[in-house]
Amino acid sequence: MSQLFEQLKPHLDKAYAYRTALVLLSWDNSTLAPKKALANTSKAVAILSGERYKALINKEVKDLLWALSTEKEQAELTAYEKAIVKNVKKNFEDLELIPPQEYQEYQLLLAKSKSAWEYAKTNNDFAAFAPVLKDIIAYTKKFASYKQKEGQPLYDVQLEDFAEGFTTEILDGFFGKLRTELVPLVQKIREKKGFISRDCLHRSYDIDTQKKMARFLSEYVGFDMDRGVIAESMHPFTTNLHNHDVRLTSFYRENGLEYALFCVIHETGHALYEQDIDDEITLTPIGGGAGMSMHESQSRLYENNFGRSKAFWKNLYSKIQAFFPEQLGDVSLDEFYGAINYSEPGLIRTAADELTYPFHIMIRYEMEKMIFENDVDVMELPKIWNQKYEEYLGVVPPTDSEGILQDMHWSGGMIGYFPSYALGSAIAAQLYHYMEKEMPLESYLEEGNLKPIQEYLKEHIHRFGESKNTQELLLETTGEAFNPDYYVEYLIKKYSALYEL
Amino acid sequence: MSQLFEQLKPHLDKAYAYRTALVLLSWDNSTLAPKKALANTSKAVAILSGERYKALINKEVKDLLWALSTEKEQAELTAYEKAIVKNVKKNFEDLELIPPQEYQEYQLLLAKSKSAWEYAKTNNDFAAFAPVLKDIIAYTKKFASYKQKEGQPLYDVQLEDFAEGFTTEILDGFFGKLRTELVPLVQKIREKKGFISRDCLHRSYDIDTQKKMARFLSEYVGFDMDRGVIAESMHPFTTNLHNHDVRLTSFYRENGLEYALFCVIHETGHALYEQDIDDEITLTPIGGGAGMSMHESQSRLYENNFGRSKAFWKNLYSKIQAFFPEQLGDVSLDEFYGAINYSEPGLIRTAADELTYPFHIMIRYEMEKMIFENDVDVMELPKIWNQKYEEYLGVVPPTDSEGILQDMHWSGGMIGYFPSYALGSAIAAQLYHYMEKEMPLESYLEEGNLKPIQEYLKEHIHRFGESKNTQELLLETTGEAFNPDYYVEYLIKKYSALYEL
Repeated sequence: MSQLFEQLKPHLDKAYAYRTALVLLSWDNSTLAPKKALANTSKAVAILSGERYKALINKEVKDLLWALSTEKEQAELTAYEKAIVKNVKKNFEDLELIPPQEYQEYQLLLAKSKSAWEYAKTNNDFAAFAPVLKDIIAYTKKFASYKQKEGQPLYDVQLEDFAEGFTTEILDGFFGKLRTELVPLVQKIREKKGFISRDCLHRSYDIDTQKKMARFLSEYVGFDMDRGVIAESMHPFTTNLHNHDVRLTSFYRENGLEYALFCVIHETGHALYEQDIDDEITLTPIGGGAGMSMHESQSRLYENNFGRSKAFWKNLYSKIQAFFPEQLGDVSLDEFYGAINYSEPGLIRTAADELTYPFHIMIRYEMEKMIFENDVDVMELPKIWNQKYEEYLGVVPPTDSEGILQDMHWSGGMIGYFPSYALGSAIAAQLYHYMEKEMPLESYLEEGNLKPIQEYLKEHIHRFGESKNTQELLLETTGEAFNPDYYVEYLIKKYSALYEL
Repeated sequence: MSQLFEQLKPHLDKAYAYRTALVLLSWDNSTLAPKKALANTSKAVAILSGERYKALINKEVKDLLWALSTEKEQAELTAYEKAIVKNVKKNFEDLELIPPQEYQEYQLLLAKSKSAWEYAKTNNDFAAFAPVLKDIIAYTKKFASYKQKEGQPLYDVQLEDFAEGFTTEILDGFFGKLRTELVPLVQKIREKKGFISRDCLHRSYDIDTQKKMARFLSEYVGFDMDRGVIAESMHPFTTNLHNHDVRLTSFYRENGLEYALFCVIHETGHALYEQDIDDEITLTPIGGGAGMSMHESQSRLYENNFGRSKAFWKNLYSKIQAFFPEQLGDVSLDEFYGAINYSEPGLIRTAADELTYPFHIMIRYEMEKMIFENDVDVMELPKIWNQKYEEYLGVVPPTDSEGILQDMHWSGGMIGYFPSYALGSAIAAQLYHYMEKEMPLESYLEEGNLKPIQEYLKEHIHRFGESKNTQELLLETTGEAFNPDYYVEYLIKKYSALYEL
């Protein structure tokens, strides 16, 4: 047992305590808090955020971290302890590179940028958001430049924050392949418009019954309600206080059953990851998942590879019919399977089907890369956005609210985050491919025997939390690095069959 | 503006931030958190509690508080600022009198005492709780002795913590009067058993409909849902993050409509108090109510003096019937009014009617006083308890779980807390008496025009928070100190009429 690590522990515990408070405050704000509460409550949030920052960013912690990084001390640490030291030290180093004055200015900017974006989106007024976006881009690029290594593309620095181990080189290859292989497929499906219908999902579905169905479905997939909560929010998300308290939200539309169905399966995919984190690290800085792309791979594996497969619904569908006998009684399994896989290029990322989804991400990727590589005039961005939508998806947003303003990420400084969504889908396909060799995957799905599937994921991925990164986990689990071929093959095979191409 | 007070502010803000986090964690634990979450989450709670303590109990704050207490500095402070300094200084002084070692031992004792009580209650095993209770009594008495002033009864010190300004002398007079005047009344009502029935409240009431009714009722009484939340918990309570985020819970029984009705009105009484606290002090240490007894007076004023009056239901009753046409359609207003005021001595405090309720408190008061004045053998307490129940209420608990173990207060060190409940009822009656002179109170209740009533309470009591104590507020509002006569008169008049005595 390392004495120095023992000295670090109280600091880690404090950071965990602040994180717990802040996660709960944020959860509460999204799910329950009364509408006039925010102004007062956010004063507490600001103070607690400051304390959380100070808990790990201080001289005492710094001395301990550097002392713990010597070879002699490292030899005394467990793998988890090493990962914790590495993780906290990296945060420290990243923050140290940024002058405190600039960091504070940036925090102030972020404090008002979300409402600027909300205003712009509500009023379809990109010009109102443009100056804020311009500043966010400037700060983000400047901060990335502080961390940039010799010869490293600037956007690569930014990607590191969200998808460690993924570079523009890898992503160019990935999106290039998608463009080449999938654009023709999307085009062929457009030509068969009407071949599949999803009208059955748009009948009137009682919301209270949908909520009961959502809970049933989440538990069916594996969510442990003794260690979890399901609530409702405008934008579905999953969060956790620790592995014994994982919370997901869903979202319901009376005339769109697909929202409840797939929001819940998607979020449960995230939630299983969080519930499976090792007890030993759940209260530490490495108690989360291994980065955004791996997290997203789990939600998409459940939502799409499992949740939109025919095997998954073979025996389950009758149970969903039982919730809605009037609405689904006359809909066959095949019709239902078609409906949940209906594909049509659209404007909105979060409403996109499995096939056209990655194009929404590709467009953002290309724009973010361009922003980082060139001096782009912010006011030109909507035009570029619309051109790309026309080129890849054949649709043009009638308003910026339905175009470049649709997502809040950039307003929160999350540039470089989007690629994780598409990477997640590709990683899911890669994992699925290997899991099929390890177990009778399709039979398990048909039988509703999802436990061994989750056990496999827990054993190979979930339990490690952030102690390993996405590329390491992929290599150890599948025996190869990230490989998008499985994803492209999967989509072509699935959609060619569905649309009889 | 006092410069010293400006220096104190960041410390106050920090304490407020920790309080916010802890209140939310506690609320969440009672209403939503998954059942296996507590062990991990309580580690964060322990750390945040420690930080909260340190935020105000430190050398820097001490120096500021003492410096702010000089006559010269006091002259520069507003009334609120003075109250804040006084409040924080009093906490400081109280804590300073207790040796840190003993304080910590006591905290450790409290950390395990609740589960010891729960075990004992579940298993009807008082002996299992007795050693813990013995230690709690010993610590409580020791801590009180540190604060005890020359000639002051020890139990008076303890009472100060919960009902500032109320002494054993006042309480002896109060309970003495209740004993003399009300025991005969209770006896007479026993003899008319069957004269009133409450069977209509024990029909089958759908829980979801009860929840809708509860929300309607709370808003009818005045709860502002834009600044509030209603949830469900085992034991109803009200809490707040600040005046724009006040949260109450209710509790529902399918075969007992009175629970939903009066839990909700009671808790809304507390909640209106919290929503009415002045904006200027809501985020400060004096942002709560003026002590337990005044808080309880507001909940009981709404629950009993208003909520169990005929005027209140005159026009409202038909709206409740509309929620439950099958169950209440054949029940007249008079029958309903009788049912909600049905009186019968029972064993359980929280299920007691308005008339027999104070006897439950009187018994606890007598026992607590005895514990503080004498060296009582803890193992004798159940026997004493049962004797008193037989003497005052004519009932004997068949088990200790339904007797001395029914409430958790003592297990949390809350000795001296119970009297506030009865004081609250008496204060409510005193306020009601004076309010009748100030406004057409009964007409307002009949019309459902509760706004001017709340405005009056806000103006005279609520807005001040803890900046004035209960006795001060009573004197300023009613022109006299605490006077239990109104309460006794009210009960005698009401119950004599109800039971035609």
